[in-house]
Amino acid sequence: MSGNSFGKLFTVTTFGESHGPAIGGIVDGCPPGLPLTEADLQIDLDRRKPGTSRHTTQRREDDKVKILSGVFEGKTTGCPIGLLIENSDQRSKDYSQIKDKFRPGHADYTYQQKYGIRDYRGGGRSSARETAVRVAAGAIAKKYLQEHYGMQIRGYLAQLGSLKPNPDNFDWEEINRNPFFCPDASKVPELETYLDALRNEGNSIGARINVVASHVPVGLGEPIFDRLDAEIAHALMSINAVKGVEIGDGFACVQQKGTQHRDEITPEGFLSNHAGGILGGISTGQDIVASIALKPTSSLRLPGRTIDIDGQATEVITTGRHDPCVGIRATPIAEAMLALVLIDHLMRNRAQNS
Amino acid sequence: MSGNSFGKLFTVTTFGESHGPAIGGIVDGCPPGLPLTEADLQIDLDRRKPGTSRHTTQRREDDKVKILSGVFEGKTTGCPIGLLIENSDQRSKDYSQIKDKFRPGHADYTYQQKYGIRDYRGGGRSSARETAVRVAAGAIAKKYLQEHYGMQIRGYLAQLGSLKPNPDNFDWEEINRNPFFCPDASKVPELETYLDALRNEGNSIGARINVVASHVPVGLGEPIFDRLDAEIAHALMSINAVKGVEIGDGFACVQQKGTQHRDEITPEGFLSNHAGGILGGISTGQDIVASIALKPTSSLRLPGRTIDIDGQATEVITTGRHDPCVGIRATPIAEAMLALVLIDHLMRNRAQNS
Amino acid sequence: MSGNSFGKLFTVTTFGESHGPAIGGIVDGCPPGLPLTEADLQIDLDRRKPGTSRHTTQRREDDKVKILSGVFEGKTTGCPIGLLIENSDQRSKDYSQIKDKFRPGHADYTYQQKYGIRDYRGGGRSSARETAVRVAAGAIAKKYLQEHYGMQIRGYLAQLGSLKPNPDNFDWEEINRNPFFCPDASKVPELETYLDALRNEGNSIGARINVVASHVPVGLGEPIFDRLDAEIAHALMSINAVKGVEIGDGFACVQQKGTQHRDEITPEGFLSNHAGGILGGISTGQDIVASIALKPTSSLRLPGRTIDIDGQATEVITTGRHDPCVGIRATPIAEAMLALVLIDHLMRNRAQNS
Amino acid sequence: MSGNSFGKLFTVTTFGESHGPAIGGIVDGCPPGLPLTEADLQIDLDRRKPGTSRHTTQRREDDKVKILSGVFEGKTTGCPIGLLIENSDQRSKDYSQIKDKFRPGHADYTYQQKYGIRDYRGGGRSSARETAVRVAAGAIAKKYLQEHYGMQIRGYLAQLGSLKPNPDNFDWEEINRNPFFCPDASKVPELETYLDALRNEGNSIGARINVVASHVPVGLGEPIFDRLDAEIAHALMSINAVKGVEIGDGFACVQQKGTQHRDEITPEGFLSNHAGGILGGISTGQDIVASIALKPTSSLRLPGRTIDIDGQATEVITTGRHDPCVGIRATPIAEAMLALVLIDHLMRNRAQNS
Repeated sequence: MSGNSFGKLFTVTTFGESHGPAIGGIVDGCPPGLPLTEADLQIDLDRRKPGTSRHTTQRREDDKVKILSGVFEGKTTGCPIGLLIENSDQRSKDYSQIKDKFRPGHADYTYQQKYGIRDYRGGGRSSARETAVRVAAGAIAKKYLQEHYGMQIRGYLAQLGSLKPNPDNFDWEEINRNPFFCPDASKVPELETYLDALRNEGNSIGARINVVASHVPVGLGEPIFDRLDAEIAHALMSINAVKGVEIGDGFACVQQKGTQHRDEITPEGFLSNHAGGILGGISTGQDIVASIALKPTSSLRLPGRTIDIDGQATEVITTGRHDPCVGIRATPIAEAMLALVLIDHLMRNRAQNS
Repeated sequence: MSGNSFGKLFTVTTFGESHGPAIGGIVDGCPPGLPLTEADLQIDLDRRKPGTSRHTTQRREDDKVKILSGVFEGKTTGCPIGLLIENSDQRSKDYSQIKDKFRPGHADYTYQQKYGIRDYRGGGRSSARETAVRVAAGAIAKKYLQEHYGMQIRGYLAQLGSLKPNPDNFDWEEINRNPFFCPDASKVPELETYLDALRNEGNSIGARINVVASHVPVGLGEPIFDRLDAEIAHALMSINAVKGVEIGDGFACVQQKGTQHRDEITPEGFLSNHAGGILGGISTGQDIVASIALKPTSSLRLPGRTIDIDGQATEVITTGRHDPCVGIRATPIAEAMLALVLIDHLMRNRAQNS
Repeated sequence: MSGNSFGKLFTVTTFGESHGPAIGGIVDGCPPGLPLTEADLQIDLDRRKPGTSRHTTQRREDDKVKILSGVFEGKTTGCPIGLLIENSDQRSKDYSQIKDKFRPGHADYTYQQKYGIRDYRGGGRSSARETAVRVAAGAIAKKYLQEHYGMQIRGYLAQLGSLKPNPDNFDWEEINRNPFFCPDASKVPELETYLDALRNEGNSIGARINVVASHVPVGLGEPIFDRLDAEIAHALMSINAVKGVEIGDGFACVQQKGTQHRDEITPEGFLSNHAGGILGGISTGQDIVASIALKPTSSLRLPGRTIDIDGQATEVITTGRHDPCVGIRATPIAEAMLALVLIDHLMRNRAQNS
Repeated sequence: MSGNSFGKLFTVTTFGESHGPAIGGIVDGCPPGLPLTEADLQIDLDRRKPGTSRHTTQRREDDKVKILSGVFEGKTTGCPIGLLIENSDQRSKDYSQIKDKFRPGHADYTYQQKYGIRDYRGGGRSSARETAVRVAAGAIAKKYLQEHYGMQIRGYLAQLGSLKPNPDNFDWEEINRNPFFCPDASKVPELETYLDALRNEGNSIGARINVVASHVPVGLGEPIFDRLDAEIAHALMSINAVKGVEIGDGFACVQQKGTQHRDEITPEGFLSNHAGGILGGISTGQDIVASIALKPTSSLRLPGRTIDIDGQATEVITTGRHDPCVGIRATPIAEAMLALVLIDHLMRNRAQNS
């Protein structure tokens, strides 16, 4: 409960820094009897993994996850699942450039102020490297939700800078075929060109990712504070670089009238889904639709003004390996977080029904 | 922890339905020694109160809060603060029109599906009436933050439909002078005209509310999952009708480049605040800036298609007293929720420092 | 979570002081559809109520509980249940004798040190008056467990000073017929004589209470830290004046050999219940048996040495209305706490099973 | 929160089974700036380690702990501390004797019933092997409490069968010199003789362990449910084989009068400590004294009646390596649990004080 845990009944706790010996976590509360192997987790870990295309950081990590407990003879036992991922690519690099400087837009300054000490190597705990553990934990949740409820949780790139997939070309199958999780194959060349230019420039760009959960049972979510949408907002906003979360129509609601927004109901079902599958904080049984905004990374090759640990003015340039668009790799992370919310609420719901 | 509590160290738990005898709550964890009277809470309750202008619901509620415990000789004792607000205006109304129908866009359908039973009078637990207790609890938090840290938490209407205050006319003092919490006095007549027309039409409209916390200490927020921004998103998304949350630049980040977004630092402080006062989930000491989108209420005098409890097609019209723009009264609620997050994190922070 | 809540899924939060206007609480997480009236709660409240015989405090309290929410048309709705009990007998008494003194054996000293302020009237928050709310909440749990699982939770006086009921005369029916919750009718005259003498003396005595839950399903309890026995210990030790908790054979185990203690199993069931119905922290399906030790109250008419708020030596005598054996009235409280643990774990168990 | 975590602000979560590849845990919430090395943890791990004398199980485990995160340049960073202990002695043994049988007095039956699956190798998750992680986590807490508050937490064997150390010979220094944690050197030969005979007999015996915390600040503990004594009871009862917990005089209170029990106060301090250092659930500043009863292990070489997984009558004999008195090695575990409670409450206390 000190910040590194998520979920009340299906609880994930993570540990580890970017350049420590390993990262890992504990999944506590996974129901027993679920067939589970390391390969099940590896699928999503490989989707998130750095270095798979020239458009993401060139850090080389196998991201091979080990299950240390909680699985016996191929099935979960109901006991906590220990997860371990060794950090293989911890370049013994010279940190003297950044150890005493606060990179603007990064957590360097706030960690130092909060704790009086920080592991400056690769961002330490604030690095997105930690999200690998979330993806592994989320893969367990996804498998359970799929096997027991037929639930499907999928994300995709909805916008990168001003580039958007064309809705007419939307294809779920395409998403895992290109390095951008873009559902529109025809848009991929444009994305490549744009990112190549950006990388040359030494700059970065923001992105919007959408996540959708299908076949969600009606009735998930607890009033008042643990509304399903509130917990989804919490989960998604906890992803590094996220600055905004929408459910359903989101900010478009500001200009909508009630007649336009309300989803009418017929005996055959809802006529629309402006609500994004949630009413009064409880799932309607429709698709749950959420959208997040990710800021452009501040790790740039273009110099920025900052101060050092003594408060003196200085400049900083990031020379390391970084994603020009951190939003790209956020897709499997957002899926994982949504899965973690849904399994937790599903279990909370079961608790109430005799 | 079953959904009606918020906060880990400064915890608010609420109870009550729209048309029951009373609503109330318990604030657990308020530090001892804070001077506190019912009048301190009444200020914000009166700001949220219905029926104060023709632009909000005409339900008449005094919203007089009683403090039942936790305060002795004018000061908090460290023991839980019991809060009680009687429901004075529970019109003995005929509910036969809606008791067996699910109003589209409302929680009627989801509550019935989830629980198999619902208090249909005025929306029961899903009514925004519950937020009065949050406002009372938030007022305690605000007072503590103000007295001990000089912190100030203020919200305002940032957009209603397509109407926006003009930034050049922005005046914090104006906000509490008009019924819209609009910081631009010159915009008030336009808002009045628009809402009058809307009310005549029987329709409703969405809104955007901004909340700002000033004089926030650096270092609030816990990685990884309890980031300050993640908890703010949770808190704000838990407000009735909210469909989107932004921190700092929010969704504008999608089109920003890194050079544009990163807030550079000088010995005199940050040069900008695109981050909204939070980096790596931890407060920077700058203003915390958040924005929320509220959907238009679905309680309309214009008929909508729906089904009844037996799944048969029918129509529904809302004839009761309702806000044409629920976003208006959300301002003090959003302030309260932000205050609850901040005091909780402030206390969590203190726990770690010896 | 700041100390005044109990339970993770069926959560009780209480507020109120001995001499404030009211005490009360919120039960959050009660499953929907349970038939419930105030009369259901009153039964146990009346069993705990002061002033029912000359052997308990003569404070006069009706202890009439009001249900303010969460029940609609006679059934629970799944929403939080607000409970309120007004304090009717707050004698406007002169507290000058004790307001600046710390009664030995009481919480006066520790509350003052911890908070720097305390409500000294009747012990304030540290008074056992608060347990009325637990009893009301426990009655809800008991009703649910009885209706859905046939579970029965009963307590009795197992020892008072050196007086013990004779096991040969044990009669569950007798327990509610005498003011001591003593299961042996033949022992009642002796108890009366002893307590009369004690009251005349101005002294007090300790007691042992046993609680037993029958028809408990196998499988309740979560390893490692939330073992059923650990949570029962927590619950029972949280009752005012309790200084010891045993499960099954308890401290007798210290001198037992393994062959003597282990409960052998046959196809017809366990051959004994030394374990008290719990193995490895999980219920076995046998009766759950727990025992508690309650200290003698320190509110005595015999003077005791102490210090005042300025650290000066002084003496204190308690002249108010007090129980010579607080253990007596602890029986319904212990039942309530055991019920709260069991319903919480039952719900946690349901969450895990698909 | 699914049972494998302890503590609200200083939170320990553990994973791992007796015969899996490794056990481990995460300590979340440790304040930053504490000097910490693996050697600090190893001291207590070595005290708990099996195989150090002929009187404990002959399983050979190095119990070498690795710190995987949360420590940088020799100091804690405020980020979660990942702990890993590899299981080195997992004999590839034939489990066919016990895999389908429920050993009486063990968790075999309850785990199978609860989860429908269990890791039967060495007791799986229910093995006391898990407590190594608690000891490692407790060592961090102990170090912090010692360095920042001068607090000292020590335990000892208070009784084994009918053998008790003579209070006149009590010597804190002696405790770590003999394999029994016995504070009376003159009693050691008797303990050796008794345990040798017991081992030859194939039987086991119960024990009583006392733990004492000195230099505890006044004011730790939260009313009502999170009283310090209630949390200590929870913590200690969560240790494998514990069946009873006492604070201060414990069950002796049952026969005490108020005049005898109440600890009078003088300007020089309390005149006695019957309360065990806790009044009204809050620490008094005196020594905190707790006592636990541990049952005799049910792993015996003497046959016991039981059933198999099909419900058929059978017999079971335990041939593996087991402690004839599991109570002996519980001393460092009890110290660890007490330390975890105290640091958590210390941090909760700090949160409330501005």
